[in-house]
Amino acid sequence: MTSLTLYIGNKNYSSWSFRPWLGMRMAGITFEEVLIPFDFANGHPAIKAISPSGKVPVLRDGEMLISESLAILDHVARQAPGSGLWPDDHLLRSKAMSMSCEMLSGFHALRNACPMNMRRPRKAIEVSGAIAADVARVETLWSGCLEQTGGPFLLGGFSIADAMFAPVVNRLDVYGFEVSDVCALYMRRMQALPAWREWEEAGRAEPWIVEEDEA
Amino acid sequence: MTSLTLYIGNKNYSSWSFRPWLGMRMAGITFEEVLIPFDFANGHPAIKAISPSGKVPVLRDGEMLISESLAILDHVARQAPGSGLWPDDHLLRSKAMSMSCEMLSGFHALRNACPMNMRRPRKAIEVSGAIAADVARVETLWSGCLEQTGGPFLLGGFSIADAMFAPVVNRLDVYGFEVSDVCALYMRRMQALPAWREWEEAGRAEPWIVEEDEA
Repeated sequence: MTSLTLYIGNKNYSSWSFRPWLGMRMAGITFEEVLIPFDFANGHPAIKAISPSGKVPVLRDGEMLISESLAILDHVARQAPGSGLWPDDHLLRSKAMSMSCEMLSGFHALRNACPMNMRRPRKAIEVSGAIAADVARVETLWSGCLEQTGGPFLLGGFSIADAMFAPVVNRLDVYGFEVSDVCALYMRRMQALPAWREWEEAGRAEPWIVEEDEA
Repeated sequence: MTSLTLYIGNKNYSSWSFRPWLGMRMAGITFEEVLIPFDFANGHPAIKAISPSGKVPVLRDGEMLISESLAILDHVARQAPGSGLWPDDHLLRSKAMSMSCEMLSGFHALRNACPMNMRRPRKAIEVSGAIAADVARVETLWSGCLEQTGGPFLLGGFSIADAMFAPVVNRLDVYGFEVSDVCALYMRRMQALPAWREWEEAGRAEPWIVEEDEA
């Protein structure tokens, strides 16, 4: 394996960055981390200088730049087949991929109203029908998986699906959503991971405030 | 392999359905097709009756239902490893996955303003800055790939990336966007595929008009 560098945004806010960072840490993959703080006022010139898509996260693997959180995780999973990032079982893997794609393409009401925010004190917000529907769908997906596999993570061992939904774990917590016991337990399990705590503490310690993400 | 059934929406409009259908056809995968016409007025009860996510496409493989176009394609690619649906080369595959994820999570301006529409006469529309930026990004991605691989498809042979961008080929054509020669040639190549023509002719012949998608 060539040397890997993961370019990320603010740890307090960048949900897209948190996914591959957490997945790679959980899989024990060695990588260098470069944090480029968001610069909304100026259109993020430092991110655009490195990233062909204009977004973070981006993974540099030798000469190649790979964008998109799910694609980065899939790339490293193929390089580290023993990592468990994708479940070995064919159908569980399809489930993990399907959930990850649903996360990538949907849940816009929840994502727009409730930005990931590691340092936000837990406080409930007014919940629209669209947000409630997104949360209900998350609960259906999570509880269905945990019931089917027995946990401790969505597909049994920690997988890309957990990494993809990690920012939602933060959102459901800090915006004060009431969730089922099985989902609350899963959320606490995720938030207790040493890698999670390391990211969260670094996010809380950041000096930058992004007004757009303070809902 | 167990028997596969792909549930799709209207062939004239359902961009999400077109992707796995085209990819599976191009890979020579045998499947049964069940078309459930959209029913916007009533909230699509027939789709919700079959699909856990409430959306099409959905693939039934034995007892399992798999939603999300990219996850369906990944599922069948693992069952048919000689199909070329994912490029064999590790880095080309990462490129295919990255582009597919970018398609899944982005290009909202283009997708919202220009619904896929197989029977629409070619006619230019007024183009906002956001739509122009989406089209410029598509052109950068396509021309970069075609230059790197030499074509005839994005990553050389037909892959999941081509299937994921197929609805954009229709959009750039019927909404009259001016594109570079290399992109125009690629679009004509895609639209000349027998599988493409079969889908397009079936879409044109459908009796249903979805006002929401007649831009």
